[in-house]
Amino acid sequence: MTAFSLSPSAGPQDIRQAIRRGDWTQHTSGLAPGFAQANLVILPAQYADDFIRFCLMNPRPCPVLDVTRPGDPSPRSLGEGIDLRHDLPRYRLYRHGVLESECTDIAEYWQDDFVSFSIGCSFSFEEALLNDGLDVRHIHHRRNVPMYRTNRALTPSGPFRGELVVSMRPFSAEQAIRAIQITTDMPKVHGAPLHIGNPALIGIDDLAKPDFGEPPVIHDDDLPVFWACGVTPQLAIEQAKLPFVITHSPGHMLITDVPNQRLKFS
Amino acid sequence: MTAFSLSPSAGPQDIRQAIRRGDWTQHTSGLAPGFAQANLVILPAQYADDFIRFCLMNPRPCPVLDVTRPGDPSPRSLGEGIDLRHDLPRYRLYRHGVLESECTDIAEYWQDDFVSFSIGCSFSFEEALLNDGLDVRHIHHRRNVPMYRTNRALTPSGPFRGELVVSMRPFSAEQAIRAIQITTDMPKVHGAPLHIGNPALIGIDDLAKPDFGEPPVIHDDDLPVFWACGVTPQLAIEQAKLPFVITHSPGHMLITDVPNQRLKFS
Repeated sequence: MTAFSLSPSAGPQDIRQAIRRGDWTQHTSGLAPGFAQANLVILPAQYADDFIRFCLMNPRPCPVLDVTRPGDPSPRSLGEGIDLRHDLPRYRLYRHGVLESECTDIAEYWQDDFVSFSIGCSFSFEEALLNDGLDVRHIHHRRNVPMYRTNRALTPSGPFRGELVVSMRPFSAEQAIRAIQITTDMPKVHGAPLHIGNPALIGIDDLAKPDFGEPPVIHDDDLPVFWACGVTPQLAIEQAKLPFVITHSPGHMLITDVPNQRLKFS
Repeated sequence: MTAFSLSPSAGPQDIRQAIRRGDWTQHTSGLAPGFAQANLVILPAQYADDFIRFCLMNPRPCPVLDVTRPGDPSPRSLGEGIDLRHDLPRYRLYRHGVLESECTDIAEYWQDDFVSFSIGCSFSFEEALLNDGLDVRHIHHRRNVPMYRTNRALTPSGPFRGELVVSMRPFSAEQAIRAIQITTDMPKVHGAPLHIGNPALIGIDDLAKPDFGEPPVIHDDDLPVFWACGVTPQLAIEQAKLPFVITHSPGHMLITDVPNQRLKFS
């Protein structure tokens, strides 16, 4: 780990430059407040059509912000001069569905037929919830959000299939209603919740034992509220066992130049 | 009861004419689909300032659509040629907080200092829920909606005070989320729910025993969803024990020329 530290006022371009130089290899949570961060999936072009249809047919877990042309490392709609080969702090390389390694730069693995998908991330709507004064419990307690596999099948497309994964945030009834209103307005970052209340109805046995992330802190009288989660496409991709896929490493996201405000439809 | 029947295609003006002639004295539920209906409160001008502030400070239960000038029987923003002295099928007269009588025309009681408040009605958002394909349970079972007194105090204003009354509609979790989205968009007809889930948290002991309306039909796995209810101002007015007040009789509403669609803010 480097001793490098980012200024709290660093903007998206400053941070991407620090990442590109190798000065920042940590997670991106809390960096560049006000700007959207994105999940990254890089696939050979031959799988891109199936994956794009998979995303379109499952828009809540897979809200696509940008798709590049084959070989182009720049998601041009998301910022100036982004190079996806260098500009994320940590990547994961999968071969035939197995995690092979992590690295901080993927230039040496780049292929001319790579198509890159940038997918909306819940960081954006969590910022909107916090800005509205809601108690986003896992942030309050400095934990990772709890995530759960559900029994809800995704619409398959080519090799991509699987079950929906959800993240859960507990709220009082009043704050749950407000959270639904706020996230309804942000369909490009998972949008409104898919479920509220009884976890068993979507195949979750025990809220205290999430499949990913950390256990929740739930108060008496809270309602659990469930949103589609960006881990969903990650699992679908692992399950597809493609020869070669690159993704971001969890929490180590692409920082874009897109204001979160611009992800609201109204 | 007359043998008169309204054509299913009768518009708001046709129906108001039939009511004015005395040909229609029944309730207005289901009449003039697509057009807003309104609750009516008529008060002497000396109480109007307090009541207007009461409505503004409690906007969810008391969404004001129109306030007339003293003595004017026409809520001009709600339609052409409406005369509130004749155009509702049934009125209630209260003296000192006590229901004195019901009648079908109030011309003989009219005072030059009467101010008339037209207040948004849940019929409008129920139509929006039905149009979206939601199962509005009490309509499905041809019952009156269940309504409950809560422990939530209203903001008082002059003689007007009391507790919030809510209506309850049970939905599956998925439909509850959708219902929140739809009604958020309609703040002039009570807007988003105020509570979801555990009734005890708002002081309701037993859902099977509503204070007004009929008992609900609740399915396993339903969530109860609670909206502010137009009965709230009615009770506050009774409690204020004003010398003389006229209201509509429950279910016998003012039919306006305002399309429900125009009550959506987006």
